[in-house]
Amino acid sequence: MTIKDTLHKYQQRVDAYLDDTLLSDSIEPRLQEAMRYALFNGGKRVRPILVYMVNQMLNGKLEDADAAAGAIECVHSYSLVHDDLPAMDDDDLRRGKPTCHIAFDEAAAILAGDALQCAGFELLTLDTTQPGRNLAMVKVLAKASGDSGMVVGQAFDLSHVGKALTLEQLEAMHKHKTGALLNAAVDLGALSSGCTDVETFTQLRRYGDAIGLAFQVKDDILDIEGDTETIGKPQGSDVVQNKPTYPALLGMSGAKDKLSQLHSEAISALQPFGDAAQPLVELADFIVYRDH
Amino acid sequence: MTIKDTLHKYQQRVDAYLDDTLLSDSIEPRLQEAMRYALFNGGKRVRPILVYMVNQMLNGKLEDADAAAGAIECVHSYSLVHDDLPAMDDDDLRRGKPTCHIAFDEAAAILAGDALQCAGFELLTLDTTQPGRNLAMVKVLAKASGDSGMVVGQAFDLSHVGKALTLEQLEAMHKHKTGALLNAAVDLGALSSGCTDVETFTQLRRYGDAIGLAFQVKDDILDIEGDTETIGKPQGSDVVQNKPTYPALLGMSGAKDKLSQLHSEAISALQPFGDAAQPLVELADFIVYRDH
Repeated sequence: MTIKDTLHKYQQRVDAYLDDTLLSDSIEPRLQEAMRYALFNGGKRVRPILVYMVNQMLNGKLEDADAAAGAIECVHSYSLVHDDLPAMDDDDLRRGKPTCHIAFDEAAAILAGDALQCAGFELLTLDTTQPGRNLAMVKVLAKASGDSGMVVGQAFDLSHVGKALTLEQLEAMHKHKTGALLNAAVDLGALSSGCTDVETFTQLRRYGDAIGLAFQVKDDILDIEGDTETIGKPQGSDVVQNKPTYPALLGMSGAKDKLSQLHSEAISALQPFGDAAQPLVELADFIVYRDH
Repeated sequence: MTIKDTLHKYQQRVDAYLDDTLLSDSIEPRLQEAMRYALFNGGKRVRPILVYMVNQMLNGKLEDADAAAGAIECVHSYSLVHDDLPAMDDDDLRRGKPTCHIAFDEAAAILAGDALQCAGFELLTLDTTQPGRNLAMVKVLAKASGDSGMVVGQAFDLSHVGKALTLEQLEAMHKHKTGALLNAAVDLGALSSGCTDVETFTQLRRYGDAIGLAFQVKDDILDIEGDTETIGKPQGSDVVQNKPTYPALLGMSGAKDKLSQLHSEAISALQPFGDAAQPLVELADFIVYRDH
């Protein structure tokens, strides 16, 4: 199976799980339409894929990873819906399609985001047979996505648009804004496999940290070198919006060196897991070599 | 101890808990300032009070109820911050003070709301000694506040402003928008006491349903008969905004009959608990007889 096949398999798996699980009767069906619009928008499902891959590497059962994979995608999706709002990044397009507040309206987008966050946590409570494991999952997801994780990263980002950042500040921003949730995906994958070994979690966090930053460095590079149609947003929009980026701070060649160094760090963190880590190695390759 | 003393004791208790628990180092302290501004705004703390009162009636320990009391207030607070946004109810004042997006800005208010929701769930994971109980709390809170509870109630409300509602629709709206979270408070109180008796939960839900609707009917009556300064928002604003209300559908006398009937229902649901239910009886009285 090629990496593309593996990614496709897990993308389909989490989509099927979410499609089955999130539908319910409602006094206001338009809310669920907005939630589903935001959720099924052609996203790469990187976080669920990480959950499944770590679960499989540690000999877990895929069905034990579905709720965590779905939950983290709900939280990621809500964050995109809210980040796109006029008061935030004010984006009309995401992956070439109208953003949620354009396709519906602002109030619907705010509420759909709120409900998606909540749905993420609810998914982790559906199976009550292993409450210790599931409560640990809730904790991981909450710590990664709130005021010490993703949300504070976005707040920091918004308050520094147009301001000069040091490399340390840029890195701190990304570690919160995107890194925390990617690391949570790795932790959730390990928890879903039944893993309780502290050393395993530490090693996997090294991998998570590295691919989290690599993902961002690559995004910054693609914004300059990518093709508008392929990357799904106007090429060069970071420069236009005067956003702090790795190429701006390190130069393009420095940014590429950084990407390569993070790639090596990710691969090295997987050494102890041997051949079982091959899909995670290929995922790191995919993040670094992708063209959108 | 009078009911006012009891309410004050629990208000102070949940405030102290939240004040202690929510502070942390942050790369963007303004986010926490906005969260705390929204949280410590002179709210009545009805939901935490319910959690504590049910916990005590069922011989629980107060310290086992702190996380649930704090969590439900975080979720309630986030919903107020988002409801006040320009794209939603567009309110500049809440309890006589500038709303969060006026005191800070819209982006800060959206993010503070997002982080408060997340903090609510995180609080329920801090104690891991009783994972079954705490996971059940996460489930109760999530079910009550998402797309089958509070959020869908707000979505329904927004999409029906200026439209005629039947009494059944008005009731369904309130059961979702405010009733679900009040019922969750009752459930959380019972869970925090260690209660697992289904009959107790059923009986307490009768109480929760009744005071939830009573709260709303009373709000509608106060909007017409209350004093602007006392109720903290412009008197008559429901009429100006053409909002569907109980007095509009039932007439003022019919609305007052309804309130009295819900009050009786709440008291009757507490019968099986005898004298231990006295604080909950007085809370029902307080909801029905309050002047703001």
